[in-house]
Amino acid sequence: MSVLVIGGNGFIGSRLVSALRSRGDEVVVLDRYPARPDMDWSGVTYHVGNFHDAPALDQVLSGVDAVYHLASCTVPSTADADPLADIQGNLAGTHHLLAAMRSRGIRRFCYFSSGGTVYGNPDVVPVPETHPLRPISSYGIVKVAIEHYLAVFERQGWLDPVVIRPSNPYGPGQATGGIQGAVAVFLGKALAGEGVQIWGGGETIRDYIFIDDLIDLTLRACDSGRNAVFNAGSGKGISLNELCACIRQVTGSELPAAYQDGRAFDVREVVLDVTLACRELGWTPHTDIHAGIQRTWRAMKAHEAHQAGMDG
Amino acid sequence: MSVLVIGGNGFIGSRLVSALRSRGDEVVVLDRYPARPDMDWSGVTYHVGNFHDAPALDQVLSGVDAVYHLASCTVPSTADADPLADIQGNLAGTHHLLAAMRSRGIRRFCYFSSGGTVYGNPDVVPVPETHPLRPISSYGIVKVAIEHYLAVFERQGWLDPVVIRPSNPYGPGQATGGIQGAVAVFLGKALAGEGVQIWGGGETIRDYIFIDDLIDLTLRACDSGRNAVFNAGSGKGISLNELCACIRQVTGSELPAAYQDGRAFDVREVVLDVTLACRELGWTPHTDIHAGIQRTWRAMKAHEAHQAGMDG
Repeated sequence: MSVLVIGGNGFIGSRLVSALRSRGDEVVVLDRYPARPDMDWSGVTYHVGNFHDAPALDQVLSGVDAVYHLASCTVPSTADADPLADIQGNLAGTHHLLAAMRSRGIRRFCYFSSGGTVYGNPDVVPVPETHPLRPISSYGIVKVAIEHYLAVFERQGWLDPVVIRPSNPYGPGQATGGIQGAVAVFLGKALAGEGVQIWGGGETIRDYIFIDDLIDLTLRACDSGRNAVFNAGSGKGISLNELCACIRQVTGSELPAAYQDGRAFDVREVVLDVTLACRELGWTPHTDIHAGIQRTWRAMKAHEAHQAGMDG
Repeated sequence: MSVLVIGGNGFIGSRLVSALRSRGDEVVVLDRYPARPDMDWSGVTYHVGNFHDAPALDQVLSGVDAVYHLASCTVPSTADADPLADIQGNLAGTHHLLAAMRSRGIRRFCYFSSGGTVYGNPDVVPVPETHPLRPISSYGIVKVAIEHYLAVFERQGWLDPVVIRPSNPYGPGQATGGIQGAVAVFLGKALAGEGVQIWGGGETIRDYIFIDDLIDLTLRACDSGRNAVFNAGSGKGISLNELCACIRQVTGSELPAAYQDGRAFDVREVVLDVTLACRELGWTPHTDIHAGIQRTWRAMKAHEAHQAGMDG
């Protein structure tokens, strides 16, 4: 099986690439950034380019059986500041990608949507896939529009889409200096002996999924052949304050917290109902938040020791 | 009060302009087509141009208190054939318009969405405004995305949006040769002594609202000062076959019907629950389908006689 991973250099994408290669798939990556140095890319065909760029798509789509689309040119905070860039880059861009797939007869499309933004402030928690989509951020609005288009194209008979709606993925390899990913950012601060900034009162509740569980679900969903939408979370919610407490416990760090005003694009509470993936895909989230943070922390410490060894 | 009507040359737009002018508002129109000849435009400032064109917006937005946005560069059938044009023209275009309003401090925005497409195939009929938005056409997807953005911008504190979701408007002045508007198209065929083409088995159920009732609701909604979403329908559904029967009765025409395969972007049944507008705006739909078709037919016959008089 030959697959294309768009956004294969990112946190999730690079782990997905590893998993696909490990099981023998032929993997092509398209990413706008050069390959990250902390991963072994042997056996992977890597292209730097934009997914809405016709010549780039010409290069990477040839002979491909399925496309995993994880690229986004925005995150929630940047999308709200410039919705037009979000619309042009992600919504129109994904149309260019899908048109290029259609012209080559490539039907299987695994799209990474967003379990944390498409529902807005949910009526019920945990929130099932059937919950109304009422996004309150540009990031979520564009994800919802793309999901709607995928359903239209499926009905038109030329696309077999499967949609993954991840909650908050975390684990080894996530950037600690980014603007997304509370676990990684907080662990990075713990490692540096610094404190954290928390928007709102720290009572914002999120559902954190360990990266290996997310990759497992993604492969099962794509392999299933189903055209469907799957929530991908742990099924359990914890507050930012509880997350900090857990990180303090694992790391032994003080991790002082400074509180800031809430952000308009943040929903108050999202916990995903993952019954569908458990039932339909035989999947289970194996790693709870405490174990996941321990594994992530150990990987960070090992990386730090390795860096120190190289420096010395 | 000075208002801008974007799409003021269309069927709904031109009636809205008349109503606004009648009550003493100062009306500016922006439309991509020159003013239709079957209406008196005296007292109205008319500009030909695109609503996403910065110089055109400069001309028309100056001194305006509220904007009615009825323009669309697509209809359901054309949007599905070219979703990118829909995204660029309507979604990105409306962002340009809103940015231009924002920079001038114009807050009141009355947006014409689509009661027939935003809900997709509804779970319940009549469908209330709170029903999940699950569009199955590009036209509906873009309308939903715009509605979501309006709610975001309201929350950001710089826009006061009111959204109208009309069902199927009809009445005097609607184009009989268009690709939208079953009542006008069918009446036009009756006038010409021709038959009609019907997609599906004629059991597609729609909610037809008489133009005067729609304009009444629109003015009440905009004047209310509320930031809200209102369905605008008759609250009653009839099938295409029933519509044909009613037109045969009113016109005395045979109106033979030829049946074609259903279209993928058509929903099976939409009837709007208009309780909210009745309760909150003191509005009632006064004209039932039989009376509305009679009035439309009389206007068409009078227009035909007038044309014949001019020709002779």
